[in-house]
Amino acid sequence: MTDSTLTNNEEITNGSVSIIPLGGLGEFGLNMMVYETENDLIVIDTGFMLPNADMPGVDLIFPDIHYLIERKEKIRGILLTHGHEDHIGALAYILRQLDVPVYGTQLTLAIASGRLREYGVFGKARLNTIAPGDTVELGAFSAEFIHVTHSIPDSVAIALRTPIGIIVHTGDFKFDMTPVDGKLSDLQTLARLGSEGVLMLVSDSTNAERPGQTPSERSIYDTIDHIFQRTEQKLFLCTFSSSLHRVQQFIDLANIHRRLIAVSGRSLLNNVRTASDLGYLHVNPDYLIDARDAAMFKSHEVMILSTGSQGEPRSALSLMALDSHPFLKVEPGDTVVISARIIPGNEKAIGNVVNHLLRRGAKIYHERNADVHVSGHGSSEDLKLMMNLLQPKFFMPMHGEYQNLVRHAELAESVGIPTENITVAEDGELIHLTPDTCEVFGREGRSGRVLVDGKPEIELEDIVLRDRIQLSEDGIVIPIIVLHSDTGDSSQQDSDQPSAVGFDQQDGVISREDLLPENQQPTETDSHSKTGLNAGEIEIISRGFVYMDKSEELIEEAKEITRRVIENLSDEQKHETETVQDEVRSALRRFFSKQMQRTPLIFPVVMRV
Amino acid sequence: MTDSTLTNNEEITNGSVSIIPLGGLGEFGLNMMVYETENDLIVIDTGFMLPNADMPGVDLIFPDIHYLIERKEKIRGILLTHGHEDHIGALAYILRQLDVPVYGTQLTLAIASGRLREYGVFGKARLNTIAPGDTVELGAFSAEFIHVTHSIPDSVAIALRTPIGIIVHTGDFKFDMTPVDGKLSDLQTLARLGSEGVLMLVSDSTNAERPGQTPSERSIYDTIDHIFQRTEQKLFLCTFSSSLHRVQQFIDLANIHRRLIAVSGRSLLNNVRTASDLGYLHVNPDYLIDARDAAMFKSHEVMILSTGSQGEPRSALSLMALDSHPFLKVEPGDTVVISARIIPGNEKAIGNVVNHLLRRGAKIYHERNADVHVSGHGSSEDLKLMMNLLQPKFFMPMHGEYQNLVRHAELAESVGIPTENITVAEDGELIHLTPDTCEVFGREGRSGRVLVDGKPEIELEDIVLRDRIQLSEDGIVIPIIVLHSDTGDSSQQDSDQPSAVGFDQQDGVISREDLLPENQQPTETDSHSKTGLNAGEIEIISRGFVYMDKSEELIEEAKEITRRVIENLSDEQKHETETVQDEVRSALRRFFSKQMQRTPLIFPVVMRV
Repeated sequence: MTDSTLTNNEEITNGSVSIIPLGGLGEFGLNMMVYETENDLIVIDTGFMLPNADMPGVDLIFPDIHYLIERKEKIRGILLTHGHEDHIGALAYILRQLDVPVYGTQLTLAIASGRLREYGVFGKARLNTIAPGDTVELGAFSAEFIHVTHSIPDSVAIALRTPIGIIVHTGDFKFDMTPVDGKLSDLQTLARLGSEGVLMLVSDSTNAERPGQTPSERSIYDTIDHIFQRTEQKLFLCTFSSSLHRVQQFIDLANIHRRLIAVSGRSLLNNVRTASDLGYLHVNPDYLIDARDAAMFKSHEVMILSTGSQGEPRSALSLMALDSHPFLKVEPGDTVVISARIIPGNEKAIGNVVNHLLRRGAKIYHERNADVHVSGHGSSEDLKLMMNLLQPKFFMPMHGEYQNLVRHAELAESVGIPTENITVAEDGELIHLTPDTCEVFGREGRSGRVLVDGKPEIELEDIVLRDRIQLSEDGIVIPIIVLHSDTGDSSQQDSDQPSAVGFDQQDGVISREDLLPENQQPTETDSHSKTGLNAGEIEIISRGFVYMDKSEELIEEAKEITRRVIENLSDEQKHETETVQDEVRSALRRFFSKQMQRTPLIFPVVMRV
Repeated sequence: MTDSTLTNNEEITNGSVSIIPLGGLGEFGLNMMVYETENDLIVIDTGFMLPNADMPGVDLIFPDIHYLIERKEKIRGILLTHGHEDHIGALAYILRQLDVPVYGTQLTLAIASGRLREYGVFGKARLNTIAPGDTVELGAFSAEFIHVTHSIPDSVAIALRTPIGIIVHTGDFKFDMTPVDGKLSDLQTLARLGSEGVLMLVSDSTNAERPGQTPSERSIYDTIDHIFQRTEQKLFLCTFSSSLHRVQQFIDLANIHRRLIAVSGRSLLNNVRTASDLGYLHVNPDYLIDARDAAMFKSHEVMILSTGSQGEPRSALSLMALDSHPFLKVEPGDTVVISARIIPGNEKAIGNVVNHLLRRGAKIYHERNADVHVSGHGSSEDLKLMMNLLQPKFFMPMHGEYQNLVRHAELAESVGIPTENITVAEDGELIHLTPDTCEVFGREGRSGRVLVDGKPEIELEDIVLRDRIQLSEDGIVIPIIVLHSDTGDSSQQDSDQPSAVGFDQQDGVISREDLLPENQQPTETDSHSKTGLNAGEIEIISRGFVYMDKSEELIEEAKEITRRVIENLSDEQKHETETVQDEVRSALRRFFSKQMQRTPLIFPVVMRV
């Protein structure tokens, strides 16, 4: 890894720019791009990613920023395109490790500040508010911010003037011809840059696989209006907390249909407050009620705005679906609108929520049965329009899984960008751009992902995650072997030694009750309560493998096998803990695999007394 | 549960029929329905289900058949509608426990027989081949088999004549007006039954949420033909092993385009062999080659038929995507067609396979970017046609999640079936049908699911699954507390006792190396190899919690906390193993939660020496 880094530094001259995607190329989320010249480096976006089901216990994923830490003297700034978590969610994590100035629009910085405060880095953060149209000088780079429409207000694309030409980094965008806030994508500036000459376009691939044009955010208004008209009881509208254009339309319709607005969910409440303070959201405070008071009003007078559109287990919507929300209740005749994309991987969770809401007698609308959602990302024709406005020499797709990037590259070919000028790169690759060439130069070894479990600063090692996955497949078996330090032998002691206090010879297997977590403990002290282990014994305990109470025979047999393994060891071998462990492990592995076709983790503990 | 069972038996008279869904109402898969009169009981379909990602280590799910076992004397037969695993996959499991006659069409029984042989129950199975149009007398029931079109040939609906009227159970169906094998759904018989008068329709809800009509299976032919024309290298066609109409079309096109056919995947090979032996599939053996020989032919002369359309990790397609298939290789210029539904929950896995195939330079077609798949299940208009042909008095939707059942009920209302005559029931409910009423009568407590892990006969207890999920979230921590049986105290011994043989005092934490599974063991014997536990010590070991090598401080602190907990116990408490465990567990739980915001399973082992 050091090699490629050195090579890169040597190669960067005033005649070239290096581009290093640290996230977002080959996945959705984690968006982070580095642009670098000989002496200067800027970062665009600092996103996080939420884990998949195959990462048990992982709370968040951040990009690995070793590449930045190693070059911290060169970093001239972090530029943010908009306030979505997949673009700003890692900012606090990064500012804890790097002291660099941050540039973003007013709303973007306001939303980012929430988490900076939470992480205790708000005080020292150097936040610089820019407005669309502004230009900022950052060493060899000059960054011009260009307004684009997206599902959150105050989004920008960035035109980077570099010593070798202009690079346009789109951020997330669509071309909404009738935006809710009236602010169009800045077609004029994009076209002007196209006339001036763009060396490279780096563009959002999220919807590259969708044909046609993404409809305007306004296109859902009529559908939601009809739902308001048809709903006679409570109306629940569920969307992402950052979809503020969506929220504006819901609020407008609530006013028209004379419903009071209860907002549920901390992130949604924060965003509504922030955006209305800054003038990005227009809401009459007289219509807002506390969600705790919703039950005090008549059903047809209330609209509840809530999060939980992805079936997140602890969200308000999931709790309501299971009728375990502390104060909100879904009842027959109510309507629930899930006005959000069903993100791949979340289908099962969302489906479960929908099934439960239906069991409560609610009417449900979601993107698969009604036009209650439109994307904030441009489709094929929007992406082509961006290319045709800018007419770039080189093109690189970003933001998406590999299949989206490939599809976006095909679109670029279709508008006439030569195949050899299109670069499909992935995270951690080093793209070397000159006025005449754009090539993948190698891999930056230090890129990757940081898995976080628990407190934000606690990284989860890959090996621990692997253990968890293995534990979840077949559980864990722990043979405890007590050897006598003089002979290293356990078996011969069985009859000679007196039973230890508190140990019941009849009760060879540690009883399940002893091993239950406290909330499952039987309240009565039972006959097993004195169980312990004495010298000269072999015990086998397990979790997630078999139900111990029903598997005594199997466990007795496993103990017998362990006993025999140890008997067959030489005295010398018995003194080598590792040898004892190895022999026991492989014997039990064979046994369980043959008997059960299961392969639990086997984790022998050797004790010497 | 015994209560409702008794009630049910008491209530069944000659004037009524009980219907008990043992699977498939409230989920996809596991299809199994019981129809029961006073003295007779029949079962339609015996399906299994594949587990979700939230059931780690589970291989298969079978319906719980206690209800049948308790009534085995009454069972007159198991009737199979078609040869898909979600309808026949549990047959072997059931026939191991119940000796009852089975009725199905020739192809259905031929496919089922494979698994019966595997389970060793083929010899004793009483299989009765029926043909569409046949009627079988089964006690109070008379079953007429009616041909319907579906994605597998030889599918039937079943009209049950009962003492109180006709019940039609559709099985899976669509109304394909141009079926590949030329065999239409038997509209005439359905219409005749409608004229005669149908008491109840029980119908497939899989596609109830899709508007319009499901296109004919033939509709994909032209798309696939175009793909054949455009492909200059190898062509991989990937579908379910049971989609034999699909396979027939692929074979026909391979003949036209002069490509040899290599079949990869055991289940696909078996089905192709069985179906062509029985005349359901027409394939010229001269065109078949062994998949191992595919590389011997020119790329443009070969078509590879394969399974793995759902991104199953060990399937041929997944192995090819990772370039680790023993003899099949995807190369630049090859085309891969995934001609199957993307089943919800599998999007991520399929997406990964697609991304990897694209990285190998292949062109990929799937249902989201080309018309390469049509469903075998009728959409809204097909479902309405079924209702209008039969004009049933009562209606019950089956096969689907709750949302699909509810949508199907809405469709029934839309064709004029009175709301009060429509029953949306779920697994384990008891539906009581008389000539005038259809009501959910209660729950049959013994219904449910049997999770299988490992050998087919090994059931997995729910509690073990819960443990696995908890283990996967935050791992397991095992404090080992060695108490002296005389005092029950560990701490006072620390300095007095001589160190046990093979134990190094400096090395309090059991080293990670000792605890690695054998394939991760360092090969050299290192300084830790003599590690063991001596009397009077506290040790903490863990898996899937933290990386022990980097967490010595945390573990030392946890040991110190454990030591203090034990010091603070009275002598009496120290003799109660359960108390020691409880106190240690709750102290460590607080500690880890505060320090790490993690909640591992804590599993104290108390030993007395």
